Amino acid sequence: MRYESGYQGVNMAAVVESVVRLPELRGFVVRCMQAVGATKEHAEPLADLLVSADYRGHYSHGLNRLDMYMKELESGIAVSGDVEPTVVKQTAATALVDGHNVLGPVVGKFCIDLAIAKARTAGIGWVSAKGSNHFGIAGWYSIRASEQGLIGMAFTNTSPLMVPTRAKEVTLGTNPISVAAPANGDSFVLDMATTAVALGKVEIQERKGEEIPLGWAVDKTGTATPNPSAATGLLPLGGTEHTSGYKGYGLGMMVEMFCGIMSGGAYGPHVRKWKTCDKIANLGQCFVAIDPNAFEDGFKDRMTDLIDICRGLQPADGEEEVLIPGDPERKHMQKCDHLGGIPYHPNQIKYANDIAAKYQLDPMEQLK
Amino acid sequence: MRYESGYQGVNMAAVVESVVRLPELRGFVVRCMQAVGATKEHAEPLADLLVSADYRGHYSHGLNRLDMYMKELESGIAVSGDVEPTVVKQTAATALVDGHNVLGPVVGKFCIDLAIAKARTAGIGWVSAKGSNHFGIAGWYSIRASEQGLIGMAFTNTSPLMVPTRAKEVTLGTNPISVAAPANGDSFVLDMATTAVALGKVEIQERKGEEIPLGWAVDKTGTATPNPSAATGLLPLGGTEHTSGYKGYGLGMMVEMFCGIMSGGAYGPHVRKWKTCDKIANLGQCFVAIDPNAFEDGFKDRMTDLIDICRGLQPADGEEEVLIPGDPERKHMQKCDHLGGIPYHPNQIKYANDIAAKYQLDPMEQLK
Repeated sequence: MRYESGYQGVNMAAVVESVVRLPELRGFVVRCMQAVGATKEHAEPLADLLVSADYRGHYSHGLNRLDMYMKELESGIAVSGDVEPTVVKQTAATALVDGHNVLGPVVGKFCIDLAIAKARTAGIGWVSAKGSNHFGIAGWYSIRASEQGLIGMAFTNTSPLMVPTRAKEVTLGTNPISVAAPANGDSFVLDMATTAVALGKVEIQERKGEEIPLGWAVDKTGTATPNPSAATGLLPLGGTEHTSGYKGYGLGMMVEMFCGIMSGGAYGPHVRKWKTCDKIANLGQCFVAIDPNAFEDGFKDRMTDLIDICRGLQPADGEEEVLIPGDPERKHMQKCDHLGGIPYHPNQIKYANDIAAKYQLDPMEQLK
Repeated sequence: MRYESGYQGVNMAAVVESVVRLPELRGFVVRCMQAVGATKEHAEPLADLLVSADYRGHYSHGLNRLDMYMKELESGIAVSGDVEPTVVKQTAATALVDGHNVLGPVVGKFCIDLAIAKARTAGIGWVSAKGSNHFGIAGWYSIRASEQGLIGMAFTNTSPLMVPTRAKEVTLGTNPISVAAPANGDSFVLDMATTAVALGKVEIQERKGEEIPLGWAVDKTGTATPNPSAATGLLPLGGTEHTSGYKGYGLGMMVEMFCGIMSGGAYGPHVRKWKTCDKIANLGQCFVAIDPNAFEDGFKDRMTDLIDICRGLQPADGEEEVLIPGDPERKHMQKCDHLGGIPYHPNQIKYANDIAAKYQLDPMEQLK
């Protein structure tokens, strides 16, 4: 759940949006990735992932990231072609996977599908991977399990951006946790960074010339700052120590343990810096699937009841409704369905057209 | 990690403390529990748990709770005697357990030991229990696994105390998450409520007549309040929506999913109210053990490196040192070791002596 979904806070009221059908976006991403050397088989999961991110309203992680993935392949810092993730060792319920530096979504899909297969027979599958790359929204993997009636989880480490409680240097990543579970015609989808906010939210406030709440970021002395321009690192979920930020720091370390530490990939400050490509990423990631049928019968009924209880709560004064994790994304998908595709800001369309022109590819068709 | 360890904020500078050796405390708790009908086998894990809580500095969950556990047995709302938790169904890696309303620590110990056994053969053990009772500090169970070289996790639902984002009613519990992992002569121990703070911290501020930070609790309108007397529910970790409290709300729901929803125990607002005994608790709990050897070799070395990196960070201006989850408790245990036992406030000793007198039992001996 990211309540900040949409165009990252930019007021869109006066902008005429273009709408792109989902299959059209998918085809475009596949074309682009193939143009820089991806096989069709590797380009497709990446395309599905980016489509899903934009469809769910997480524009920062969708089409917006296409050039990053293309650059990874073009520069040779990530690979595609005749190479696939492999299982290094396994039990009926666990596996260690080496991604062999293939595109992140290819590694992630391999791992969550392996976890799902193990959950079908052993009740649970827990897969940790090294040698991976950026895998996009963590929710894509957990949802893949929940759509098959299982509980899904996904974790990844990322470039250092978070400053531990009482420290002043970035040491851990935004290290997201995603958990998805099925209900009756419904679902629970938690997809959250273990930092208070994503870096993008601080950057947007800076662009707007507005302050940030104390609890989002620290300056170079390690002190919480209201000034986005002075921010040198993100605070963990919870903010300062006074408001229990050490819990978010602990959760970030937990994610790192499941990812880089468990798999033997890069970890903590050893992960390459954000937006640099000086060395391979060697990200660590973790994927879990659990079969609710291995536990008490009626899981989906109880999950539905809990979801309905939460949505049915009387709103706080000044609020319109109580949501559950996944509802903001659900609203965005309904909007897309109504429009017949994903609405984009003209700048995003221009960005995509520029890529198409550069690689002499057919551009994305727009509905309007 | 609970940085608030110690006597819950009360200034102890002028108070003469009494010190009680660990085995003496253990024996006392066993005597007391047996006096209200617990078998020796059921009293012992509960005693070990309470000793561990006080030794680790979590006085709110140690000896302080003895009368609550005694009352549970005396009133017949929880049971001991010729009844044990049973496995309802299982795979090589999972189990559903029915606690049959036995004392919480008995159920919890049964479940984490089952998870540990499964992790030894299947790489992971994931056990969800219904029909349980208050199980004390979640860390006791996760540490039990980490002391055997495994990653341990424990979760429980609790009486409703947390108000979901945008709501005004308490709906979920403080729903703690504990994760422990071994390092070389060291360990990582996260033990945290998914609420911003524990209820006790709000109560202490009220007793002191001091304000609470905006982000700890809400009033009856669902608005964050600085007034502890007006607080009617706790905010989730992260505080208000503005500082990402919906993430803590999502984590609280995740814990509920692993506990009440997965096991078929009570869940959400169906869990009985805090400090009431009008119906059996039927708490849901979840216990996980993972064998790091099922993944990349050298887990403990990497964990040690990450811990050392964090502890070695330059402190923020005004701070003395950077800690890792489990360090505050480590410091308290070192203090106890130096003293030869656990230091107690005279009020705590009087409370224990009152119990001894009431049940005509030998009181706890004190070192000084």
